[in-house]
Amino acid sequence: MNEQLLFNLVDLAGTFAFAISGATAARRCNLDLFGILAIAFITACGGGIARDLCIGAIPPAGLSDWRYLFTSVIAALLTIVAYPWVERLTYPVRLFDAMGLGLFAVYGAHKTLLFGHNAEMAILLGIITAIGGGMARDVLLARVSIVLQQEIYASAAFVGAALSVLGEYLSWPAVWATWLPMLACFVLRFLSLRLHWNLPRFGRDASS
Amino acid sequence: MNEQLLFNLVDLAGTFAFAISGATAARRCNLDLFGILAIAFITACGGGIARDLCIGAIPPAGLSDWRYLFTSVIAALLTIVAYPWVERLTYPVRLFDAMGLGLFAVYGAHKTLLFGHNAEMAILLGIITAIGGGMARDVLLARVSIVLQQEIYASAAFVGAALSVLGEYLSWPAVWATWLPMLACFVLRFLSLRLHWNLPRFGRDASS
Amino acid sequence: MNEQLLFNLVDLAGTFAFAISGATAARRCNLDLFGILAIAFITACGGGIARDLCIGAIPPAGLSDWRYLFTSVIAALLTIVAYPWVERLTYPVRLFDAMGLGLFAVYGAHKTLLFGHNAEMAILLGIITAIGGGMARDVLLARVSIVLQQEIYASAAFVGAALSVLGEYLSWPAVWATWLPMLACFVLRFLSLRLHWNLPRFGRDASS
Repeated sequence: MNEQLLFNLVDLAGTFAFAISGATAARRCNLDLFGILAIAFITACGGGIARDLCIGAIPPAGLSDWRYLFTSVIAALLTIVAYPWVERLTYPVRLFDAMGLGLFAVYGAHKTLLFGHNAEMAILLGIITAIGGGMARDVLLARVSIVLQQEIYASAAFVGAALSVLGEYLSWPAVWATWLPMLACFVLRFLSLRLHWNLPRFGRDASS
Repeated sequence: MNEQLLFNLVDLAGTFAFAISGATAARRCNLDLFGILAIAFITACGGGIARDLCIGAIPPAGLSDWRYLFTSVIAALLTIVAYPWVERLTYPVRLFDAMGLGLFAVYGAHKTLLFGHNAEMAILLGIITAIGGGMARDVLLARVSIVLQQEIYASAAFVGAALSVLGEYLSWPAVWATWLPMLACFVLRFLSLRLHWNLPRFGRDASS
Repeated sequence: MNEQLLFNLVDLAGTFAFAISGATAARRCNLDLFGILAIAFITACGGGIARDLCIGAIPPAGLSDWRYLFTSVIAALLTIVAYPWVERLTYPVRLFDAMGLGLFAVYGAHKTLLFGHNAEMAILLGIITAIGGGMARDVLLARVSIVLQQEIYASAAFVGAALSVLGEYLSWPAVWATWLPMLACFVLRFLSLRLHWNLPRFGRDASS
């Protein structure tokens, strides 16, 4: 299978999964049709748009490439017309979401380096690409971001982005530098879901 | 009447109406003097600033053109010193707001095309210009955005932006390409207010 | 003492104080390890990143200069491992925070002028540099920003930024143009803390 094609497929599958998670959350908050479409799109593309603004990639791909908008709209409409079916899809959606997380983190870091920025920015913007959309979703729904509260999510994105930058600095072969970090992020995220891993917390209710 | 002058007048009237809605909401949330000024300014200019960042129009006009800041400050001060009077102004303010919505959507789409971006971006950024400020207001006041919840608001902005892009692609005469989409957005918004139209909702409470 | 060195020290001390305030708030909201790190970093650097996006300074210094990330991480880790100790530090942290406020406001205005923008943008972006991080912190923690609600905080930033712009326009000697506005902002903020000054409010509960 052509590698670029595989990359694009995973990219759109990730976008789809992110949009489903956005549309589901928006539907639960009783938003109207437009609200669901908007939250789905922002969840899927918000992180990438923030990254592109920070690295000077104007126009941001999330706004100018129709495939992202199209995928988000399809995901949102599916969530509306086939909600019981989408709810039964929880498992594959989580799988796609974990894949999307890995791909977005690695692609975000890669694109940042491509635009000539340093390793720190690549790692930070890899994380922002992966979790920015989810944070925007939660901000718009007026709740503390789940991303910042529970489970290995942002940390998996960090591992993916950091490994990707390491790979580029050590000149790993392109295939390794792309797929190994994605796989590491995906496996970490997936295991944390299955085994209910969490990062430590330190607040007042931490013991409960 | 000079057309450019009319355009500028509607622009500032829209800014004024948006700022009034921001200042009123901020006042209700018991913010201090600075908070009211800040929310008024962000409601009026936030959408345009986001658009300018996305299309590479640095500096954003909302920050560098004193007329927007001045209009917002006047609107905020009026809301403070003449609140009962502003409350009685609900009807004209809603009228200006609907005009501002149309103008911001059309102008946002137009400026995006002017900077060489594609039709999808023009429509998306037309919508963001029109509703971005209201969304920022609600995010800062820690509530789910009204824009995403009720009434034909964002959808009217979509109609205005889409018609405007269509007009430019079909090379409509400039007067038509500007005023027809604005009018469509305004009428749609205004009718939805009068007749209590809403987009469908699908959440758990949708039947209530 | 070398002036540039002193400037850098105050800059990092301000970053440190802002990050402590972010980490403390995140810890109270029961965020996990990553959440605390993220909120600390965003509180310390969010304002500067927003400023850099608006003036076209790509890449934003907050993302590309490792010292900001490093200082934020140290502050967050300190807040985690030595929380009782940090709580006893309330007084010096507030002192640093007031210093950081002054420095960020003045530096934000200065950098905006340096990039060739006008006085209005310099004042607005001076304020955003100083209070943007705190606003982002509160938005992410899903609460109405303290910055917009109480005490002379944003107004002190305004005084600092405005005096700094005035100084540059009147060609004050560099030392005066830098340190006098910072001092004014610091003293104003500090006195308002000691004497419980507040801006007037006008909401329904204003009389209580």
